[in-house]
Amino acid sequence: MDIDKANQEATQKMIEARAMLTGLAKAINVIPGMRDNLLLHAGPPITWERASGPMRGAITGALIFEGKAKNETEAKALVESGEIALEPCHHHQTVGPMAGVTSPSMSVYIIKNETHGNQAFSNLNEGYGKVLRYGAFDQEVQKRLRWMEDVMAPILNGAIEASGGIDIKALLSEALHMGDEGHNRNKAGSILFLKALAPNIAKVSKDSKVTCEVLQAIGDNALSVLNPVMAACKAMADAAHGIEGSTIVTTMARNGTDFGIRVSGMGEQWFTAPAQIPKGLYFPGYKDEDANPDIGDSTITETAGIGGFAMAGAPAIVTFVSGTPQDALNASLEMYEITFSEHKYFTIPPFDFRGTPTGIDLRKVIATGITPRVNTGIAHKKAGIGQIGAGLVRPPIKMFEEALMAFAEKYGV
Amino acid sequence: MDIDKANQEATQKMIEARAMLTGLAKAINVIPGMRDNLLLHAGPPITWERASGPMRGAITGALIFEGKAKNETEAKALVESGEIALEPCHHHQTVGPMAGVTSPSMSVYIIKNETHGNQAFSNLNEGYGKVLRYGAFDQEVQKRLRWMEDVMAPILNGAIEASGGIDIKALLSEALHMGDEGHNRNKAGSILFLKALAPNIAKVSKDSKVTCEVLQAIGDNALSVLNPVMAACKAMADAAHGIEGSTIVTTMARNGTDFGIRVSGMGEQWFTAPAQIPKGLYFPGYKDEDANPDIGDSTITETAGIGGFAMAGAPAIVTFVSGTPQDALNASLEMYEITFSEHKYFTIPPFDFRGTPTGIDLRKVIATGITPRVNTGIAHKKAGIGQIGAGLVRPPIKMFEEALMAFAEKYGV
Repeated sequence: MDIDKANQEATQKMIEARAMLTGLAKAINVIPGMRDNLLLHAGPPITWERASGPMRGAITGALIFEGKAKNETEAKALVESGEIALEPCHHHQTVGPMAGVTSPSMSVYIIKNETHGNQAFSNLNEGYGKVLRYGAFDQEVQKRLRWMEDVMAPILNGAIEASGGIDIKALLSEALHMGDEGHNRNKAGSILFLKALAPNIAKVSKDSKVTCEVLQAIGDNALSVLNPVMAACKAMADAAHGIEGSTIVTTMARNGTDFGIRVSGMGEQWFTAPAQIPKGLYFPGYKDEDANPDIGDSTITETAGIGGFAMAGAPAIVTFVSGTPQDALNASLEMYEITFSEHKYFTIPPFDFRGTPTGIDLRKVIATGITPRVNTGIAHKKAGIGQIGAGLVRPPIKMFEEALMAFAEKYGV
Repeated sequence: MDIDKANQEATQKMIEARAMLTGLAKAINVIPGMRDNLLLHAGPPITWERASGPMRGAITGALIFEGKAKNETEAKALVESGEIALEPCHHHQTVGPMAGVTSPSMSVYIIKNETHGNQAFSNLNEGYGKVLRYGAFDQEVQKRLRWMEDVMAPILNGAIEASGGIDIKALLSEALHMGDEGHNRNKAGSILFLKALAPNIAKVSKDSKVTCEVLQAIGDNALSVLNPVMAACKAMADAAHGIEGSTIVTTMARNGTDFGIRVSGMGEQWFTAPAQIPKGLYFPGYKDEDANPDIGDSTITETAGIGGFAMAGAPAIVTFVSGTPQDALNASLEMYEITFSEHKYFTIPPFDFRGTPTGIDLRKVIATGITPRVNTGIAHKKAGIGQIGAGLVRPPIKMFEEALMAFAEKYGV
């Protein structure tokens, strides 16, 4: 068996996937396997019992949004009885930041990989602060979700369709030359997104007050493009998945309790280990003890060769996640040691436009003992509060070891 | 006489000037000394006879725009007879990119320095290609200028007023962390400008088709914020001007024939030398021999501590102006050798957020033999064609020598 050849094919597919944003639709109408009593969530599979505070909060919020529960007690009962099922976003071609909870009637971005034909999905980004994805679920959160769903989503869909689709891969290439790394820093990408949408929003909106509100919401949220970017990365990673004999990591995701990975040549099997507490900078009034363990599907960005892997091109991110610009350079340099390839379209200006380190190779992680670097937001560990900081985290090496052992067993190498 | 103390005061004022964009108005109504038969132009004073192709083209285009001439022959006659006067933008608190030609009925951005009270002005940016500021003046150019004046300017003015003013200094601080240097690369700044304007454009525009067109025009033009940025830099530089005993350069400007500088402690006197041909990258089909000598007031950016001086934070600019990311780092490092201060608000992430080199000190230029580095666009030398590339240029040292000699004579040092 030629692992290198398999990895070559996997990373080539990941790199060549052209992720186009084609529109939005309600999850129930577009996500494969979505059903009325299902909630999708970030990371590997989880139960209510093992779920962290922010995950429980987001589940509660989504069930309130769906009109199925009034509070956490009711939400808990629905989930524990099995009346409401929980499944990973990743099992449904979907990714969601932080808790990642996606319910049937929420609109999701639709990404089409034009090179290989697969699709991927992600929900709308709510902005910063007290938001569902960090486990907040009160009336204010519900009101915002309602507005996003009823007012913003139809206009965004119309604007994206009117634009003929937005090339998220091209947008990312550009944003990586504008100080973004695509995970925790999406300032440039989000206003490039605004630039692409704005004239079309004006075109499709029938009410100038609404036009104004939607332009403001997209422009003010420096993460507005994060969800389409994540879905784009998911489409790239999925293109690389399922290559017989490949040791390329195609999923890294956390549910707030466990960190899980999947490997191209290992089918749908998850390898998991306890999620860590990120190290970083806290918003005023919060500290380490308040932090929830690492949570979210946003590590799909590092999986696809951006995020922490592209930090060298985003030195200003250290004001947000801690460290120095030199640390940012080192982070990217180190990731070349555990990746199989270098990206053809995502490049790092301070490295003379060298391609970003792309395609985590399980073998290299084990050989070097270096685990992937991840930039992430930090959630409060209690339900209902929200984001309290941002920082850096590394997944536990244990699951990479288990994955490589399972790989060796499966392939007899 | 304490030159250091004078320079301290000058650079302090330059750095502390808070440049707010407050609106637009027609030049005749707002620029001090503007009159019906006057055209402003970039650089030090120039006559028709000595004017370069692009300058003559822009003068012709502005007179066609004003309904005063039909072609270059008529324009020439009007200027040579003195019926139409030419004066530098810089004599009227104004700056303009490339030819910089500003006529009475054109709208100009109004910048107010809230710290020291002075104002500065700049015209609207037309975008790339065949444009007036590069000397093109045909019907297509006129049609675009007309649309900008009659449709876009009133909406921009309304949007800026509705926004309560846009803090261009804060916008620049942000853009410098997003891969811009503020002169030749204003990609991030221009979409930050769009972000600030977009909701207010929707608010003030009465027609969604026009809203769409204006959002498109601002978003598609990666130089849309250049002119407000230049006016902001002019307001900063003017705040530093007129300090008795200061050797800080407060003007660097080119008219396509001469490069000229002015010095804080030397009043309104220009020191000039022949402008050079920039070295850089040409658009397909053009070469060195097609290039006009250096032209434009946009060197006000370097004068205020950004542009070529801030290149270290804008490594991706080398794809446009030639060179390597290391050259970009070196450019900024070198400029610390000839500047008096480091900026407090404009910082360079890869230098651990060190302030940009700010306030060119005539004494240091002469002591080191290092002249300022300037990023610039390259105009075709013939009237009517437009931009043919972008590159780097250094002003001749001769005028710095003459300025220092004049300074020594004036102050008896």
